[in-house]
Amino acid sequence: MGGDTSPNLLLHAIVTFAESDVCAANFVLLGTAPLQKELGNLKSKFRKIRENISFVLSGDPIRMDENPLFAIRKKKNSSLCIGMRLLKEGKIDAFVSCGNTGALMSSAKLYLSMKKGILRPALLALLPTKKTPLAVLDIGANISIKPEYLVQCATLGADFQKSRGIKKPNVGLLNIGTEALKGTSLMQKAYQEIEKRSGKEFHFIGNIEAKEVFEGKIDVLVTDGFTGNVFLKTAEGIANLVLDRLKETLAEKEFEEQMGDLQKHLHYAKYPGAHLIGVNGTVIKCHGYSTPEAFLSAIKGAIKTAHSNKTK
Amino acid sequence: MGGDTSPNLLLHAIVTFAESDVCAANFVLLGTAPLQKELGNLKSKFRKIRENISFVLSGDPIRMDENPLFAIRKKKNSSLCIGMRLLKEGKIDAFVSCGNTGALMSSAKLYLSMKKGILRPALLALLPTKKTPLAVLDIGANISIKPEYLVQCATLGADFQKSRGIKKPNVGLLNIGTEALKGTSLMQKAYQEIEKRSGKEFHFIGNIEAKEVFEGKIDVLVTDGFTGNVFLKTAEGIANLVLDRLKETLAEKEFEEQMGDLQKHLHYAKYPGAHLIGVNGTVIKCHGYSTPEAFLSAIKGAIKTAHSNKTK
Repeated sequence: MGGDTSPNLLLHAIVTFAESDVCAANFVLLGTAPLQKELGNLKSKFRKIRENISFVLSGDPIRMDENPLFAIRKKKNSSLCIGMRLLKEGKIDAFVSCGNTGALMSSAKLYLSMKKGILRPALLALLPTKKTPLAVLDIGANISIKPEYLVQCATLGADFQKSRGIKKPNVGLLNIGTEALKGTSLMQKAYQEIEKRSGKEFHFIGNIEAKEVFEGKIDVLVTDGFTGNVFLKTAEGIANLVLDRLKETLAEKEFEEQMGDLQKHLHYAKYPGAHLIGVNGTVIKCHGYSTPEAFLSAIKGAIKTAHSNKTK
Repeated sequence: MGGDTSPNLLLHAIVTFAESDVCAANFVLLGTAPLQKELGNLKSKFRKIRENISFVLSGDPIRMDENPLFAIRKKKNSSLCIGMRLLKEGKIDAFVSCGNTGALMSSAKLYLSMKKGILRPALLALLPTKKTPLAVLDIGANISIKPEYLVQCATLGADFQKSRGIKKPNVGLLNIGTEALKGTSLMQKAYQEIEKRSGKEFHFIGNIEAKEVFEGKIDVLVTDGFTGNVFLKTAEGIANLVLDRLKETLAEKEFEEQMGDLQKHLHYAKYPGAHLIGVNGTVIKCHGYSTPEAFLSAIKGAIKTAHSNKTK
């Protein structure tokens, strides 16, 4: 609920996936009465989902234009708030949402415990480079820029990449030049603070420009929520521009072969969602305008993360 | 002088172009003694450049890591400061530089007169979209964000597009969502101020997200120098990632046919440079890391602008 895409469309996508043989998860869907009715209809037709999909009736959903802090206090029975409580209580292993980003972050802060020493959650996206995937954070959880948030992004991003098998991640600070004195005074302060922490947990390579980021020399890109969000959406926009142009001329098979993996990560319709990190619990945020395909992609990512947490 | 690319390489590129039949310009090159010597050698070999290339000996160049304000006061005989004075005196019609961006902006402010009502120059780049080219500004002249700079960017960008034949340009403010209250308080203030001016000179469509920018619905994208610089370099980086991948698989001719124009605008090696606007005079800024090819591309752009100014 609460995204820009019809919940019914998302429901049908989940049902198709949950009926398939590759699905190794149980679903708890959160929604209002019409969605519950639709699920009931589908359950009468499909066998497997009678077992692996359950439903929790939620109240008025949080809209995109609502003030996040007011909304999570007023709408404690929204799907977003109930989901966060189920996660806290261990009744679900991962929570996927395409609702209001601010409300998701605030409710995570309210209901879940924070990781040790972390002040605020951050949103992390994995992007393709010429080498291994890059963790970019924050991509929109914290709009106000404070040097200490950027330092925490360095730590959280490095931890994330270590959990993916990179022993000592290379961390870069997104800036408009490589020299230590580039950018605003806030960026200069963040540079100094991150540099102090470089060595043990991660290696700080200093400032990095956006055009170098995709060369694959770093594992973690640290940026504030405003710049990170612009960065991510620019990457999507340009990729969309180039890939759409290509689609006009290349045959479908040829296009898939050459560009399939890039498209999967850069084309917004197939984007696999972002990780809300810094909290104890797996929370995946999809774009509000997620297509059913992107939503499923995020769900598959959440299942993978939940499985990997369980085997640790 | 003062860029990251060898001045000798840039000199050879200019000489090749100046010798060609398509060249309809005279050049005044600014540089130190070794460059003057090299030009002398080339003049003994080539005929046309004896007529259309002259040389002005300049002093110690301004380096990339120098403080712009100190540098332009201390190094009045640098190629950058001499060039700006020649432009002011009408001895050249356009000035092209790949030196220190801050110094270029500060010297333009010092030597040239500002356009009426404009407080600071801005850097404008033209980028391809799915429809007509988009003017993006500021892409790095002003790092400190003030709402009034963003308002001036709207006016300057609209004027630029009007000079290119667009009667009433559509202006958008780069933000992380489309609602008026999205982004930082500074962005919200800028939104209100630009909206007040919408109607006569341009049409303000409101906030726009980076992924929508390339759809071609707007003619001018307003942003601060930090975000604009990240935006531009992200576009370059992603385009580079996708285009390099394509080059591996497509035949050269096929690649040129399908991607030639996109590559010309997005691939940093072929990037045609940015316009320093808000001042009286044509100033084109190339990246410090410009290849001879990119530098020539900027020179051709400067010639075109100068010709169009003369015929007005």
